Amino acid sequence: MKSDLDALMEANGVDVLLISGPAQHNPAMVYFTGTAHLMAADLIKKRGEEPVLFHFAMERDEAAKSGLRTIGYEQFASAQWYQQANGDAARITALRYQAMLQALSIQQGRVLLYGLVDQGTAFGVFSLLREMLPGIELAGDGQEKVLRQAMATKDANEVARIRWMGQVTTQVVGQTADFLSSQSAKDGVLVNSTGEPVTIGEVKRRISLWLAEAGVDNPEDTIFAIGRDSAVPHSTGTPTDLIRLGKTIVYDIFPCEKGGGYFYDFTRTWCLGYAPDDAWQLYNQVHQVYQTIYDELRLGQTCSYYQNRACELFEAMGHPTQRTDPRAEEGYPHGLGHGVGLYLQARPWFRLKDPNNETLQPGTVMTLEPGLYYPDRELGMRLENTLWLAPDGHKEVLADFPMDLVLPVRQG
Amino acid sequence: MKSDLDALMEANGVDVLLISGPAQHNPAMVYFTGTAHLMAADLIKKRGEEPVLFHFAMERDEAAKSGLRTIGYEQFASAQWYQQANGDAARITALRYQAMLQALSIQQGRVLLYGLVDQGTAFGVFSLLREMLPGIELAGDGQEKVLRQAMATKDANEVARIRWMGQVTTQVVGQTADFLSSQSAKDGVLVNSTGEPVTIGEVKRRISLWLAEAGVDNPEDTIFAIGRDSAVPHSTGTPTDLIRLGKTIVYDIFPCEKGGGYFYDFTRTWCLGYAPDDAWQLYNQVHQVYQTIYDELRLGQTCSYYQNRACELFEAMGHPTQRTDPRAEEGYPHGLGHGVGLYLQARPWFRLKDPNNETLQPGTVMTLEPGLYYPDRELGMRLENTLWLAPDGHKEVLADFPMDLVLPVRQG
Repeated sequence: MKSDLDALMEANGVDVLLISGPAQHNPAMVYFTGTAHLMAADLIKKRGEEPVLFHFAMERDEAAKSGLRTIGYEQFASAQWYQQANGDAARITALRYQAMLQALSIQQGRVLLYGLVDQGTAFGVFSLLREMLPGIELAGDGQEKVLRQAMATKDANEVARIRWMGQVTTQVVGQTADFLSSQSAKDGVLVNSTGEPVTIGEVKRRISLWLAEAGVDNPEDTIFAIGRDSAVPHSTGTPTDLIRLGKTIVYDIFPCEKGGGYFYDFTRTWCLGYAPDDAWQLYNQVHQVYQTIYDELRLGQTCSYYQNRACELFEAMGHPTQRTDPRAEEGYPHGLGHGVGLYLQARPWFRLKDPNNETLQPGTVMTLEPGLYYPDRELGMRLENTLWLAPDGHKEVLADFPMDLVLPVRQG
Repeated sequence: MKSDLDALMEANGVDVLLISGPAQHNPAMVYFTGTAHLMAADLIKKRGEEPVLFHFAMERDEAAKSGLRTIGYEQFASAQWYQQANGDAARITALRYQAMLQALSIQQGRVLLYGLVDQGTAFGVFSLLREMLPGIELAGDGQEKVLRQAMATKDANEVARIRWMGQVTTQVVGQTADFLSSQSAKDGVLVNSTGEPVTIGEVKRRISLWLAEAGVDNPEDTIFAIGRDSAVPHSTGTPTDLIRLGKTIVYDIFPCEKGGGYFYDFTRTWCLGYAPDDAWQLYNQVHQVYQTIYDELRLGQTCSYYQNRACELFEAMGHPTQRTDPRAEEGYPHGLGHGVGLYLQARPWFRLKDPNNETLQPGTVMTLEPGLYYPDRELGMRLENTLWLAPDGHKEVLADFPMDLVLPVRQG
């Protein structure tokens, strides 16, 4: 949680956090500023002190809304930099960082860098800054032990916001189910009231619209994939595909608060009209693994334990996994879950081997999403909820929704 | 244009482009891949060769849709890296980059880095890679002379896509005008049919919905700002503000193709019901500067010429500008325009001084957006269109829309 940040900085020998980029769809920045219409800004937090937000003059009102201490870049505007840098943009920016750090009396120590910016620009600017300020060590949070560790556990306000996103998400999933069930079947294909086939593309357009009506953003699209596409975990679906009865549809939806705030992550697998035996079999197996792991989740256990446990359960059912074949594209090839917050995917990570032996901490918000995939059989199956591991030890699915496999449709 | 890329690499002594990050809302990647549901990928382009896209196994179908040559990261999976790097994530990634470059026989030369990724991760990984591969020079495109220069001019297909975004944008602006004009005025405030005031927040929600209905994304929000807010160039507006007749509303809208494709950028300033004399005066002045500069734009002239020309025109009207006071928050404090494409803001830049003496090139797509701002008088005014400077020398506003200042409303 944010309240752990100074202690995490101390424990990891970090003196300063330097976060760059916009204040929208940029988790490290939004964590401090909230979503704001800042196209380019820097935030500097010294250990034990409140962060300071640096901004362009034109964006002063938006910067002020953050409630943080703000400093306009124009305080540092210096015609001599332009001469000194011979017009080189990276060097001018590095000189500005030097002045910003000086303004906060930062002359030495370890500075961690964060924020979504162009990697070439960042590499150029910070390579120069490193030369200018030999007393300062610039680094990334490669082991995710500081800011990303703080972000891995959520306080009550964050949980409330993710829960609200869960309500929006499941409401839209409900609208999707109602829409599909109100169509008819004709020759094994879903058709609308005028007898035209309903396509994957049309359903996805409606999902986008329902999300917009709910006032949320959907920056990473939605997975609504049928048949073989459902068996390729990150396939988003083919817009022109028809919706054939009895084929598995993986529906994975992960919107966020407007402007790039907290995400929710949710998956159901549906068959319209009926499910064939092999779909039922995969469904029962994935559901069983979901329920077994859910029941076994407890604070303090390592994430890699659960990743191995999921593999063990699927292997006992006869499926290949990451353990039996690291390159497998069939069976169970992916992680059991991941943290959810301002990052759609963040700590904790579920891996077979984990050098950090990461454990489930009080306040973790994470997905649980076992799945099975058989592209050649055109069968994919995944079930996913976002869970909160509360500090008092109870666990909770943040938005309830039925796990039914079959959605009924009318026979036309 | 993309067809200039090899020549630009040659002219600037660049051997390789290395682009990282997702294939959504990441312009440098999307330029080659199109928008695709790739959460993390790398693209490597050697001078004179087609680019190669590296991807995770789970995203192989989405990678294949790019039509590019693809290589899965799993080709390089090597348990020994984990040992060699002692579990250090940045070093494992650096070792993977080393292997990827080796696979493409890249052992020396100048490599430019691009793509939106966490700056700390990038700085850590590429600092290590620089140590591993002393024959390779890693750098950013600080002067924007290679990829961003290629992107600054658009081919026919790109112009068609931006033109389509212009049609969508002006359609939504028209819906907004129709909505506002269909309300009534009561005690100087806009009210709906039940007599409730219409807020800025409600108008912005409707704009979001109309954009979603049109199937486009709006990742950077919309500026719909009234009164004092209209006089702060990047203020997005206060949701609870009422819409008072006669106050200036700056409406700046900049959506993009779904998934992070081409943008359009467009601004009108409206007064509902009537405009007071001081708003009319600013309107006439901004409109005159817009029209004068538009008529004077020609290929080959420098952008800084036009930036100075706009200042000259506004100064002659008695307004402070960037030239008379670089820190001014009144008068004309911003650039005259900027390139538009996969980046909302990109080359060409309009600056008073430009070390590159950048000129208007055939195929440029740019905004023209003079404005005047008086926060203390609660008056802001900006007019903006996106223009194409065609290779044959003609220029064209890519989406027509009236520049009227006053929107009529019914008296309730």
